[in-house]
Amino acid sequence: MLTLIDERNKKYVVDGKKDFHTDLGVIKAEDIQNSKPGSIIKTHLGHEMKVIKANVNDYIDVMERRCTIILPKDIGIVITYTGIGCGDKVVEAGTGAGATTLRFSRVLGNEGKIYTYEKRKEFYEIAKRNIEKFGVKNVVMRYRDIRDGIIESDVDLVFLDMPDPWNVVEHAYEALKYGGWFVSYSPYVEQMKKTRKKCEEFNFSEIFTYECLLREMEIKNDAVRPKTRMIGHTAYITFARKVP
Amino acid sequence: MLTLIDERNKKYVVDGKKDFHTDLGVIKAEDIQNSKPGSIIKTHLGHEMKVIKANVNDYIDVMERRCTIILPKDIGIVITYTGIGCGDKVVEAGTGAGATTLRFSRVLGNEGKIYTYEKRKEFYEIAKRNIEKFGVKNVVMRYRDIRDGIIESDVDLVFLDMPDPWNVVEHAYEALKYGGWFVSYSPYVEQMKKTRKKCEEFNFSEIFTYECLLREMEIKNDAVRPKTRMIGHTAYITFARKVP
Amino acid sequence: MLTLIDERNKKYVVDGKKDFHTDLGVIKAEDIQNSKPGSIIKTHLGHEMKVIKANVNDYIDVMERRCTIILPKDIGIVITYTGIGCGDKVVEAGTGAGATTLRFSRVLGNEGKIYTYEKRKEFYEIAKRNIEKFGVKNVVMRYRDIRDGIIESDVDLVFLDMPDPWNVVEHAYEALKYGGWFVSYSPYVEQMKKTRKKCEEFNFSEIFTYECLLREMEIKNDAVRPKTRMIGHTAYITFARKVP
Amino acid sequence: MLTLIDERNKKYVVDGKKDFHTDLGVIKAEDIQNSKPGSIIKTHLGHEMKVIKANVNDYIDVMERRCTIILPKDIGIVITYTGIGCGDKVVEAGTGAGATTLRFSRVLGNEGKIYTYEKRKEFYEIAKRNIEKFGVKNVVMRYRDIRDGIIESDVDLVFLDMPDPWNVVEHAYEALKYGGWFVSYSPYVEQMKKTRKKCEEFNFSEIFTYECLLREMEIKNDAVRPKTRMIGHTAYITFARKVP
Repeated sequence: MLTLIDERNKKYVVDGKKDFHTDLGVIKAEDIQNSKPGSIIKTHLGHEMKVIKANVNDYIDVMERRCTIILPKDIGIVITYTGIGCGDKVVEAGTGAGATTLRFSRVLGNEGKIYTYEKRKEFYEIAKRNIEKFGVKNVVMRYRDIRDGIIESDVDLVFLDMPDPWNVVEHAYEALKYGGWFVSYSPYVEQMKKTRKKCEEFNFSEIFTYECLLREMEIKNDAVRPKTRMIGHTAYITFARKVP
Repeated sequence: MLTLIDERNKKYVVDGKKDFHTDLGVIKAEDIQNSKPGSIIKTHLGHEMKVIKANVNDYIDVMERRCTIILPKDIGIVITYTGIGCGDKVVEAGTGAGATTLRFSRVLGNEGKIYTYEKRKEFYEIAKRNIEKFGVKNVVMRYRDIRDGIIESDVDLVFLDMPDPWNVVEHAYEALKYGGWFVSYSPYVEQMKKTRKKCEEFNFSEIFTYECLLREMEIKNDAVRPKTRMIGHTAYITFARKVP
Repeated sequence: MLTLIDERNKKYVVDGKKDFHTDLGVIKAEDIQNSKPGSIIKTHLGHEMKVIKANVNDYIDVMERRCTIILPKDIGIVITYTGIGCGDKVVEAGTGAGATTLRFSRVLGNEGKIYTYEKRKEFYEIAKRNIEKFGVKNVVMRYRDIRDGIIESDVDLVFLDMPDPWNVVEHAYEALKYGGWFVSYSPYVEQMKKTRKKCEEFNFSEIFTYECLLREMEIKNDAVRPKTRMIGHTAYITFARKVP
Repeated sequence: MLTLIDERNKKYVVDGKKDFHTDLGVIKAEDIQNSKPGSIIKTHLGHEMKVIKANVNDYIDVMERRCTIILPKDIGIVITYTGIGCGDKVVEAGTGAGATTLRFSRVLGNEGKIYTYEKRKEFYEIAKRNIEKFGVKNVVMRYRDIRDGIIESDVDLVFLDMPDPWNVVEHAYEALKYGGWFVSYSPYVEQMKKTRKKCEEFNFSEIFTYECLLREMEIKNDAVRPKTRMIGHTAYITFARKVP
């Protein structure tokens, strides 16, 4: 996969399987196949496109979606505070458009696996297309309500972005490895509180909840300041670890 | 590697190569080798230890270090905003005690590689011991001042935690893949500003700087509130992407 | 002064000196004069208006202005960290539309005084109208560049919202009472740094800089969360106290 | 009242009614009476003390207290978002050590009045001493449980720092002027939520809740950064306005 950047700094993600059409003209599949990061290719109308290595963010930005996407800042802390990485087994619900699935997929590698549950047919189909098109091999999609149980066992992380994560705490406890993590992403205080209580009931350990705030700094006329606008809140992220 | 949790909730990370001594008694290497996550083993004094899968955070918490460690929150956003993952090639400086090296190592996998530069002999040695003991195979340590040049090429990410990252921007530009990222971690505004200017000179694109703030929520007597204490600042993290 | 609230929750601030015209009809001056907080009065078209005591925020919201207004959060910390109150003497520059002037005026009372400097004729005129209409007696307006010197002496607070506050540090030092405060409001790091250095040169004490962040909580469907949107930055507020 | 600053930058607040004893020696009452801001006076052991105008923060820092004090940042937003000022009438509970009482007292002036309720004898006595010693004339102390009713009427602000502010919403509604404000200061989400609901029942308008975060910037070796330590949370401050 490659990312093309046009003269207006607009980005496109292409795989070179077929000709690529934009309002600045057509790029032949062949030209894409022959290019590599660093190349500059031209549309049939003569407009230049810079070619760079595509990353998962480029792809998520342009892929089909009909729902909100969890921000990288929030997935970042899930990855580092649980310590997941290559070779690990992750269970996720709901899939949504598949953005988080792809992010996890990136850090789990070919030796790892992510099983993603989605009970809404529409999102299941969208995510399926998105994930297939991105071409990763370590994702297993499940068209299923995770509240009916988790099929996998010996799991390193169960990650939940759904309205009622407390209803999956028991299933998660069963599915998890000792030392593995349950993590839920919930916008509301009440969701977080109810989930934490359930985690305590099931004897999870190291229960903590973080909120992650990102501030962007800007430089204008050679002077530095934080940006005026900022996202005030996305969600409370609750972590709980299974111990004997 | 396994993590043991004693009755006081203190954690130990063990590899079972030899007997393990604590103030609660000795655990035989053999007992460690025969245990697995979920086991409970006893010291020769009869104290119980719960066994769980060790993760990179357990290990970093107990490993040798004589310097500050970059917090998971900050490495989290580096991972997700650059989109690095399995199979990628990362260059890092300075190594410090090796904590960040190990975190990157986790998400790069066996197909990926991290080259970590440290010019201070003392830290180089500490990190070497820490990394070897953790048993990862994708780390190449370089006892070298990264300001003298980056040996690698076609790199996905150059990550710098050093006082003068601006002195490495040129080397990073050369070493990076098109589409790869330069990221610097700097506590002071002036460092960030100087580095960003240098990135602009070298025609990097998508330059942005984030500060990541983590708030922990607590539940006391069944009532929720953010914790009184909070880390106010660690560093400004500047991102810049190489484009043609 | 009274605040009227119409059926759409839109607010108006009226003084009853003349008939008041809105798109919901006219209210006679007489009706306003005969009303008091708690009254409900009708326009000639029969629309009801609730009457409440007007406060300075109601007035600032509707008054004429062609510039950004400093937010209450920022003036709040100026008031409480300097400890100013009734009977104190404050010098301020620039006046802008007069919003901050009115806020200070409220807490200084009839025994106190605020001297506000504005060198831009247009803003001087706007502020003059705003301040006169609000009807306070403790404001002295100066159409003058404060960098040319401060006329007053024995001042409790010099508050500066201007691009180059460092150019007024010397004048402020002379004008201030021992124990009085110099405070500057600056969006950029560089302004703050330069001003602090100047304060150090003039031997000010208790120099500190705050940034004030306000998060609003919301309740939706009986569940609590911080709002998604938040103002990320307004200004760095630097305090310095004159000591012998 | 004057503030003395010794050679170690330690502060004392004195009224000159009697000799002042410190570990650096004694200062005669007469010497204090004859000094003014800007003076330098000596103890009988020859140590110098700088004299400055005392402010309410100097006094609060040294006064007797056996409880936590609400921080200036939080009182700041109460003052500016309600628009209270000289001549206003405020009701407060509980008094605690009287710090907030003194802050409000400063901005209400001689024409204003603050009625402060405290039901715990011990705190009532401490606050009484603190307030008398500070010498303000606009404070009326009430040794009384505010949940038994508010004696005053036509009040501009009812400010509550107590565990169950919802129990005072009805009394506050009765006591307030139309256009006046109910404000409660509560560390926990649940307190805030319960109070807001009660405010909705009593038909309060303009209900909103803020959390105020202060970040301090520091300069080290000529470089700027936010401080490492920060107060993560004090309280949720809920505002509600009485309308007809």
